[in-house]
Amino acid sequence: MPGSFSPLASARLKYQPRMPGLLKALPKLQAVGLKNKVKTDPGVRPFFSQLADSELVEFKRGRQIPGRPLKVGVFFSGGQAPGGHNVVSGLFDALKKIHPQAQLVGFLGGPSGLVEGKTKAVVAPALKFYRNQGGFDFLGSGRTKIETEEQLEAALACVRRLDLDGLVVVGGDDSNTNAALMAEYFLKHKAKTKVVGIPKTIDGDLRSFWIENSFGFDTATKVYSELIGNIAKDALSAKKYYHFIKLMGRSASHVTLECALKTQVNFAFIAEEIRDRKLSLKELIDGLCRKIEKRIRHGKNYGVVLIPEGLIEFIPEVKRLIGELNRILASDSSFLKVETPDSAAVQMEKIQPLLSASSRLCFQQMPRLIQTQLLCDRDPHGNVQVSQIETEKLIMELVFSQMKARGLKFKAQAHFLGYEGRSALPTNFDADYCYSLGFLAAALIQAGKTGYMAALKGLKKFTGAWQPFGVPLVSLMKLEERKGQKKPVVQKALVDLKGRDFQLFCRRRLKWENADDYLCPGPIQF
Amino acid sequence: MPGSFSPLASARLKYQPRMPGLLKALPKLQAVGLKNKVKTDPGVRPFFSQLADSELVEFKRGRQIPGRPLKVGVFFSGGQAPGGHNVVSGLFDALKKIHPQAQLVGFLGGPSGLVEGKTKAVVAPALKFYRNQGGFDFLGSGRTKIETEEQLEAALACVRRLDLDGLVVVGGDDSNTNAALMAEYFLKHKAKTKVVGIPKTIDGDLRSFWIENSFGFDTATKVYSELIGNIAKDALSAKKYYHFIKLMGRSASHVTLECALKTQVNFAFIAEEIRDRKLSLKELIDGLCRKIEKRIRHGKNYGVVLIPEGLIEFIPEVKRLIGELNRILASDSSFLKVETPDSAAVQMEKIQPLLSASSRLCFQQMPRLIQTQLLCDRDPHGNVQVSQIETEKLIMELVFSQMKARGLKFKAQAHFLGYEGRSALPTNFDADYCYSLGFLAAALIQAGKTGYMAALKGLKKFTGAWQPFGVPLVSLMKLEERKGQKKPVVQKALVDLKGRDFQLFCRRRLKWENADDYLCPGPIQF
Repeated sequence: MPGSFSPLASARLKYQPRMPGLLKALPKLQAVGLKNKVKTDPGVRPFFSQLADSELVEFKRGRQIPGRPLKVGVFFSGGQAPGGHNVVSGLFDALKKIHPQAQLVGFLGGPSGLVEGKTKAVVAPALKFYRNQGGFDFLGSGRTKIETEEQLEAALACVRRLDLDGLVVVGGDDSNTNAALMAEYFLKHKAKTKVVGIPKTIDGDLRSFWIENSFGFDTATKVYSELIGNIAKDALSAKKYYHFIKLMGRSASHVTLECALKTQVNFAFIAEEIRDRKLSLKELIDGLCRKIEKRIRHGKNYGVVLIPEGLIEFIPEVKRLIGELNRILASDSSFLKVETPDSAAVQMEKIQPLLSASSRLCFQQMPRLIQTQLLCDRDPHGNVQVSQIETEKLIMELVFSQMKARGLKFKAQAHFLGYEGRSALPTNFDADYCYSLGFLAAALIQAGKTGYMAALKGLKKFTGAWQPFGVPLVSLMKLEERKGQKKPVVQKALVDLKGRDFQLFCRRRLKWENADDYLCPGPIQF
Repeated sequence: MPGSFSPLASARLKYQPRMPGLLKALPKLQAVGLKNKVKTDPGVRPFFSQLADSELVEFKRGRQIPGRPLKVGVFFSGGQAPGGHNVVSGLFDALKKIHPQAQLVGFLGGPSGLVEGKTKAVVAPALKFYRNQGGFDFLGSGRTKIETEEQLEAALACVRRLDLDGLVVVGGDDSNTNAALMAEYFLKHKAKTKVVGIPKTIDGDLRSFWIENSFGFDTATKVYSELIGNIAKDALSAKKYYHFIKLMGRSASHVTLECALKTQVNFAFIAEEIRDRKLSLKELIDGLCRKIEKRIRHGKNYGVVLIPEGLIEFIPEVKRLIGELNRILASDSSFLKVETPDSAAVQMEKIQPLLSASSRLCFQQMPRLIQTQLLCDRDPHGNVQVSQIETEKLIMELVFSQMKARGLKFKAQAHFLGYEGRSALPTNFDADYCYSLGFLAAALIQAGKTGYMAALKGLKKFTGAWQPFGVPLVSLMKLEERKGQKKPVVQKALVDLKGRDFQLFCRRRLKWENADDYLCPGPIQF
């Protein structure tokens, strides 16, 4: 059992998540396949001989099927998202509802727990301390992939040894890709284990027609918006700082867009728009500086700028520079030893002549801090770690230089919001959503469905009216190049520039740029 | 009126702050001087010929004094603290209760609003949009001092021109020092304006026997603790990062100590203890590394370290280095032009020979990032800006180097929490406390008391039982050297190493260092 509980965390243990009316009927549920509702991409089909023709599944109230005790495994995969523990509790409660002798096995430390067979039995007395709590600490998580023949074989051996009827994968796009591969592999090898994926990620990039949102997004964006609202209020009160706030969210700008709508701060970069408009870094900075100058002319030398984590990948020239750097750094292993800013300074001179003229210029325009980060902070494969680059400081420094050149006073603060929200206590929405997803996963396994993602539609309506579906994982996949090879992957959803949220943002942002119409959402109320 | 309101901010507008029973009796209140309860420091006395013998004031229920309409001014001073707007609403409501024709004048942009006579009439229709809201945006704030003869004269001219019966200064130690100087000056010049100070600061360093806490501390530490708890939960789930979190709070470590008690994270530096034990930077880092290594031996390569903003000022060798750098940089104006990391690199070589041997060694041990910050980020007087130094990265980098030297894998993230909490929606405690302080300020002015700080005792009890006092500002003052001259200043309270909070922390910390007994306080609930 975990250690101490704050009064609020303790009170949350007792919250009983709400559920869609239909799911409450479990085990009197009947799964019905719906023809022609989803299709598998022709490029993806050859990779999934077993699953390619999977149909969308909906549920109807049915007769009581004689319940048998299912044995199911579950693991978390990748970064934390608020609500994960409720997937486990929903799944546990549903399995027990189907049959009191059901067993739930947790794999420890993420997918590696499956490959290495590290398990713990999920039992009510232990689980009760994790209901409605943040984090993934009940089971831990990890980023191991399950995609090679060897890994798939190990996973198969493990589910066979444990005699699992089902396996629930709580993860993002990569983990759900792996879930599809496992489902296919298990079917091929005639294993009985049904694989169900749960859409997890605070980044919100697991959206599609059938998957309205991933869990955790609601809580995380509310935590970030609380803080952004507070910072905006501070800016408005002190009237002396621009705050540059980078937000987690990987490539997609969903988190930034949502926080912009929730807080109405002055500026928010949406990376997808920048790519669409093919803006260079210089154009981006020039544009922002003009707007900031306009505010200064109106006596407002303060404001808030939101920056998505993935921004720089979407600026063509920077993307090119990173690509060139990765190639150069990989070509000569001596470059990999660059680990301190001092040695970086020496190497910087050696690397620059190897860059193309445009990339060299781009590199030279970067503040020294960012140049160092580009050269020093590399992942184990020697690649530039985009997520480690302090984009908020890059933008801040570049704006500062321009303001100085124009003789304008400019003071700024940089922030990065990420870890503050990934393991927060889930909102009632995420608590309900996750619990229901866990329940739904059990229903899919009971119905013998494999290679599915648990999906609830109508999330804007009240919980009772949400509609449960099983969406074939293969229908969410596209071919993408990974390490030079075309591979089927669950598609990452970027911000839809024609979508309602972005369009709303476009209509309002001119007002927000000039007026200070900040919203302070405040702390989440339960 | 301000722009939009979030649902929660809107709901908070309607919250009716609770008050001590006694204050509700206003205007049927009688102020009573209490002899020998406080005394003025002998060194301070000569500076306050008018105020030196002020007595502590308490209140009793009295007869209805025929109320007359008071005219009072108010301003915010210094950094934001949650609850400031409630001081204004409490003051406004109290003045109107004394007499409906009372007037409240707000000075805009802080103390400079008084010196420059920038005012706005505080009226009910505008004020109602700021009740129980965070920030200081209703009036703005600023850091202008009022201490020179010229400034005091300008302030006097302004209060005379506006015919003010009272002036309420909402500020920290410096602003309350200025409030005492104004009270003395106004008395000397026979002005009728009574000056009352309100203890404001999230830093919590305005404590003394009579002042149990400053407003804003409660809210800010709760916001920070929400985030620290979330980060700790994340560390425990991901099991791969150490999080180094710097917390605002100026010199004193009150905020860090409070957050440590609220979240029970593994490590928290208390600067006052480090000074008391005369620890060098090396000893500090060595000690932390040993403890981290112990955790790693127990399979825990993750954790959370809290770092007070003022830490490095309390490490003797670093303090000496900063002192030497300030002197060197002031001695040669060409050094002041160092503004980019590139030119810093050149200057670094020039400056090092000018340092003492021990300071040179200290400087050389610093990571390059910190060396650059020491040389580049200087205030308008050319002094090193201690608050701008990224201490969290300094500690993180030094630990990283040691871990690497010992062949241990070590991954870390740095955070700084400050602006996220200064302008948050005030907790019920801060909303009540501030509203009551505003009410009390009106009572002091009505009673003709000047040079006082509004004080409420018994804050741990329920609101109705809080006891209102007027504490002579001079009794809170000590002589300190400022710019080479002995000056009377309101004393800043550091963490009391014999106090209950620190002692509690000492008893528990060994457990917290090794076990993961993190608390997740979660978001503030209203």
